[in-house]
Amino acid sequence: LFCDKNGGKRGKMYINTNHKTHFQGRRCEFTACCQNIMEYGMETVRSLKVECGVWVGFEHSTFNGQQFILEKGDYPCWEAWSGNNAYRIERMMSFRPIYSATHSDCRMMLFECENMTGRQWEVCNDYPSLQAMGWCNNEVGSIQVMSGAWVCYQYPGYRGYQYIMECDCHGGEYRHYREYGCHAQTPQIQSICRIQH
Amino acid sequence: LFCDKNGGKRGKMYINTNHKTHFQGRRCEFTACCQNIMEYGMETVRSLKVECGVWVGFEHSTFNGQQFILEKGDYPCWEAWSGNNAYRIERMMSFRPIYSATHSDCRMMLFECENMTGRQWEVCNDYPSLQAMGWCNNEVGSIQVMSGAWVCYQYPGYRGYQYIMECDCHGGEYRHYREYGCHAQTPQIQSICRIQH
Repeated sequence: LFCDKNGGKRGKMYINTNHKTHFQGRRCEFTACCQNIMEYGMETVRSLKVECGVWVGFEHSTFNGQQFILEKGDYPCWEAWSGNNAYRIERMMSFRPIYSATHSDCRMMLFECENMTGRQWEVCNDYPSLQAMGWCNNEVGSIQVMSGAWVCYQYPGYRGYQYIMECDCHGGEYRHYREYGCHAQTPQIQSICRIQH
Repeated sequence: LFCDKNGGKRGKMYINTNHKTHFQGRRCEFTACCQNIMEYGMETVRSLKVECGVWVGFEHSTFNGQQFILEKGDYPCWEAWSGNNAYRIERMMSFRPIYSATHSDCRMMLFECENMTGRQWEVCNDYPSLQAMGWCNNEVGSIQVMSGAWVCYQYPGYRGYQYIMECDCHGGEYRHYREYGCHAQTPQIQSICRIQH
């Protein structure tokens, strides 16, 4: 399987399973999305290496549940990709490359209220604390991604639940916090980070 | 207590304790470093709000043990500031403002080997994956911070152990991974992030 969208950029990722961390156990190579690792005879992912591209992992099959951004590098255990310790289910069942990650241009509009209403702020940079930059509170009501792809985080400093926001998903529109991800329970977003190739 | 170094910039932080999360229990305001919260009659920190400035929290008293970067915003529970789930000790006993955080200029030299030897790379930006930018492996042998303050993370995407690196600590020199923090057990560093005011 090869993914050759987006100007020839390719992703490649290795995953390991068999209840073993630190790159032990059976190993599989992926170069395109995987909607259910059980189709490859695996129960879950225990460690992984991203060789190229940027990926998003999901708690459940068919790209559902908690989201985990996966940048190039080594992830020897579940803790390495999860930003949320409270809800500790060590499961990653599906994943896909992020094609809209770009190096040059990331733009996103944050809105105070749902349906793109209330105060708004156009961002084009990483912010470990939105409130430090003058954002009104610890919530973002709705989001329009104009270009690129982003990770929005529940807590400051890129902690807590992760929501991957892409210009080429839903037309870049996230009109209510329930559209941030099926695991989103509040509009709480306190830091944001561009996904860059 | 007021901290008025660094051109009048002030930090302010509230902490809550009494075994209650989500900003319940007794509340204390801090505007300068605290080397042991037991001096304030508290056993540990259960939730906190950073009102201004950037702070670093420590697992143990007198600024020892695991480090936690604390940007402006709300931290309702331990999971909100910890990036490391594996070593799950819910303790924060001391903290201090980071005075060398700057908006304009952050520069740091990464070295492949200890004592500032081997391949080197001068960085002045955030990198969620050093390896995606061409860094040779998942380790950094030593570090020279020329200006500003940084967080170095064990895993890609700002996950895992956090090491706060400041130009005004140790003259900005971190010659061996044991100087990254007293909890550092390997030279593994896979993402870096500027600390900005």
